[in-house]
Amino acid sequence: MVVIYKRPDLTQEQFRRHLQGTHATLAKNLPGLRKYVQNYVCADPKRTPPGWDAVVELHFDDWSSMEVAWASPQGAASDADLPAFVDMTRTTWSAVDEITVLE
Amino acid sequence: MVVIYKRPDLTQEQFRRHLQGTHATLAKNLPGLRKYVQNYVCADPKRTPPGWDAVVELHFDDWSSMEVAWASPQGAASDADLPAFVDMTRTTWSAVDEITVLE
Repeated sequence: MVVIYKRPDLTQEQFRRHLQGTHATLAKNLPGLRKYVQNYVCADPKRTPPGWDAVVELHFDDWSSMEVAWASPQGAASDADLPAFVDMTRTTWSAVDEITVLE
Repeated sequence: MVVIYKRPDLTQEQFRRHLQGTHATLAKNLPGLRKYVQNYVCADPKRTPPGWDAVVELHFDDWSSMEVAWASPQGAASDADLPAFVDMTRTTWSAVDEITVLE
């Protein structure tokens, strides 16, 4: 799971176009990737923006499938694209345990 | 979507027990909630921890259903529980557009 802060010199629209276009195409090709979801912050008239601009979910069958993906040429290509649209000093990622409480 | 930092005086285990127990029970009762997922940061021998401790997803049919939930007594009860386990100065939330790129 990745909590993304956009590069400050990009508009929301430029950021979203890159993440939804070029980057999604690269990420989709990761070997073993089962599901890939991008969550974009909405304009909200009633609440303060959270600071981050998107949360991205990459789903793998297990830990070793995830490591294979990161070690692959497709993983390297996806990583190499990050500085084009991401604030690398603030963006953070982690493997997570997903607990579905209600579905 | 909520990016949660735990209260610094709680251990990971105390934080997780509260979020998965007391808080999940309160959140599950929100009117109109369609799906509720908790994602907990995993220990990772190879990578730096992200700083945040969990990302929580609350799914509603539409914006007005979400507003009804927050304005309900169940929403108030869920909010009132946050300071028991959350660092309120760092935790952030936002409505998001969910784009499923690969499923």
